[in-house]
Amino acid sequence: MVSEKSYVLGTKKSTIRTIFEFGRKRAAQVGEDNVYDFSIGNPNVPAPEAVKQAIIDILGEMDSVALHGYTVAPGDPQVRETIAQSINRRFGTGFGGKNLFMTSGAAAAITICFKALTEDEGHSEFITFAPYFPEYKCFVEAVGADLTVVPANQENFQIQFDKFEEMLSADTRAVIVNSPNNPSGVVYSEETISHLAAILVKKEQEYGHPIFIISDEPYRELVYGGLKVPYIPNYYKNTLVCYSWSKSLSLPGERIGYIVVPDEVADFGRVYGAIAGAARVLTHVNASSLFQRVVARCVDEPANIADYERNGQLLYDGLIEAGFTCQKPQGAFYLFPKALEEDDYAFCERAKKYDLLLVPGADFGCPGYFRAAYCIKEDTIRRSIPAFKRLAAEYGK
Amino acid sequence: MVSEKSYVLGTKKSTIRTIFEFGRKRAAQVGEDNVYDFSIGNPNVPAPEAVKQAIIDILGEMDSVALHGYTVAPGDPQVRETIAQSINRRFGTGFGGKNLFMTSGAAAAITICFKALTEDEGHSEFITFAPYFPEYKCFVEAVGADLTVVPANQENFQIQFDKFEEMLSADTRAVIVNSPNNPSGVVYSEETISHLAAILVKKEQEYGHPIFIISDEPYRELVYGGLKVPYIPNYYKNTLVCYSWSKSLSLPGERIGYIVVPDEVADFGRVYGAIAGAARVLTHVNASSLFQRVVARCVDEPANIADYERNGQLLYDGLIEAGFTCQKPQGAFYLFPKALEEDDYAFCERAKKYDLLLVPGADFGCPGYFRAAYCIKEDTIRRSIPAFKRLAAEYGK
Repeated sequence: MVSEKSYVLGTKKSTIRTIFEFGRKRAAQVGEDNVYDFSIGNPNVPAPEAVKQAIIDILGEMDSVALHGYTVAPGDPQVRETIAQSINRRFGTGFGGKNLFMTSGAAAAITICFKALTEDEGHSEFITFAPYFPEYKCFVEAVGADLTVVPANQENFQIQFDKFEEMLSADTRAVIVNSPNNPSGVVYSEETISHLAAILVKKEQEYGHPIFIISDEPYRELVYGGLKVPYIPNYYKNTLVCYSWSKSLSLPGERIGYIVVPDEVADFGRVYGAIAGAARVLTHVNASSLFQRVVARCVDEPANIADYERNGQLLYDGLIEAGFTCQKPQGAFYLFPKALEEDDYAFCERAKKYDLLLVPGADFGCPGYFRAAYCIKEDTIRRSIPAFKRLAAEYGK
Repeated sequence: MVSEKSYVLGTKKSTIRTIFEFGRKRAAQVGEDNVYDFSIGNPNVPAPEAVKQAIIDILGEMDSVALHGYTVAPGDPQVRETIAQSINRRFGTGFGGKNLFMTSGAAAAITICFKALTEDEGHSEFITFAPYFPEYKCFVEAVGADLTVVPANQENFQIQFDKFEEMLSADTRAVIVNSPNNPSGVVYSEETISHLAAILVKKEQEYGHPIFIISDEPYRELVYGGLKVPYIPNYYKNTLVCYSWSKSLSLPGERIGYIVVPDEVADFGRVYGAIAGAARVLTHVNASSLFQRVVARCVDEPANIADYERNGQLLYDGLIEAGFTCQKPQGAFYLFPKALEEDDYAFCERAKKYDLLLVPGADFGCPGYFRAAYCIKEDTIRRSIPAFKRLAAEYGK
């Protein structure tokens, strides 16, 4: 009577959601302040004041029919031009408005790319690197393709290139890159990106067709210690950039982002056309007409990263002191430390005794670790450290 | 290299778009005022002032993180409850927030329903009635099902029930009803809805499984002369209502609407669950968090229909005077008169000589007619009447 697949997708609770709901119940018992909930990756800093001001200004300046009316499907031309110029200033690129396609956030952007690049007949495959954002699998499978996951490089959460090269095939349509990474918090180095590009150029020649990089970069502005995130179109021509203002402007509920299709991709017209068609049947009509204008006005607004940077360092220092091993926080708002026993589910279960809510790494294709989202109150992090220490003590740390 | 189907969907211009673009060029030659563009169905009345005020109030009252943050996927619980209560007051229903699923407009709402009701294996079919909104076909086929179109009842654009009954099959998952109708401007009568319901109840028993009505009702508030649009869940229990504020609040670019899943549908839990899963992979994360709150505050705001009503009557009177035959305007903002020759493409081509931009009925599955969208300036309609008369004169009217 209904699609069983859709029913399962719509009703099976994710581990994260289950942990989060446990946290809500526990908070009702022991008080909000006594639950250390590191489960959910939602921005906790407010949108910049400039966003509110932009909305009010736009409402005052623009005619209602023009403001709230349909834009063309790729987005308002002036908005796209403004955003393209901002990208050009920052990354030395040469994009115009015609290279952008405005979307309802990054989930829409990446799924549109998956659908556009999945061939109508035959087998299409996308590759990503553990640890990875688990929705990739749902989105890729929903367009009729398969997701292949390269095991994690546990040394530094860069890429295991030997494994990657083995796993590439003639069916590979694109490689999904997510840096700064959810859940590892690591930024791929310039060396990593260059190496990745070199392998793909070689494989493109071998297979005689393009292999795209889909760069999923909602966390692009959330980097710490002055680190630079290499802008992938500058390293590899067949790159599609998927961006969202969910994190940089703290607007996750408003669903606003874009896809960049550089002129340099193999057959720009066909790729951009397929993106428009995929968007059409994925129920994109246009990205919110108000928020298109808002992000254009706020495009050079700096992301408020100070709170995240402080939180990341605080949690990292506390974990190290408690005896955990963990990569330093580089970007996004996650740490991905090693669990203190092999079974990360058992470890996260044990952590609950101390009201520490952590997500098992296996959920991100990387067992033996756990994710801690530090987009929460600084005070909560500070007060959680003794709990981490007691948990570690159970394991003889 | 890319999906050919997506490429075609993204690049093949619709007839409407082609006509519209011709109109833009022609306007540059002869002046904006001398082109009578009836091609595009975009609301031309501004959003009520209450919308602007609601946005400003919400920005002032709500915390930024709560306002612009993710809502749960089905939508903010308070928003859903408020909308449910408004529906209940108007239609005597007994919905609660749990019966609503907020979507990014009606295109998303109907496609989510198509995907949720399309079985994973085997053949699924949806039925609609000509004349019909042509995107139905793209959306239905994209989820792997087929669209069957019952030929138009050319007497009054109600339903040809004998043909409909013949075309129903065990593979029919749902019947798509769009009243007030795009493009005919006709409202299905209570008699039509009751007859439709009676047939479906009988067929459900025969096939031993539910057949849903998907009621696509973005034009629900746009009805004239005090006409009432029967609220289909009150006539047939397996009804899913898909609504959008695009027309009633003139917010088409903001993409905000909902699906109603009544308690009474066969297996509420499975249907609602499948809708949530279908939404998930159709890149719905949540409907715009700001606009969820806006429509909740404006839910009882009356649609500004006076301009449309006046326009519809003016165009209708002019067409009748010029010798056309046409149903009286009942709802939406379209008239669907008979073309003056059998070939509606040839007719619309000839109309261009008089700078009358009309859309052939064949585009809506109903050759021999044309659509005229009257959501344009009253003055343009007034000045177009002599052009319609000259066109009719060519046909000896």
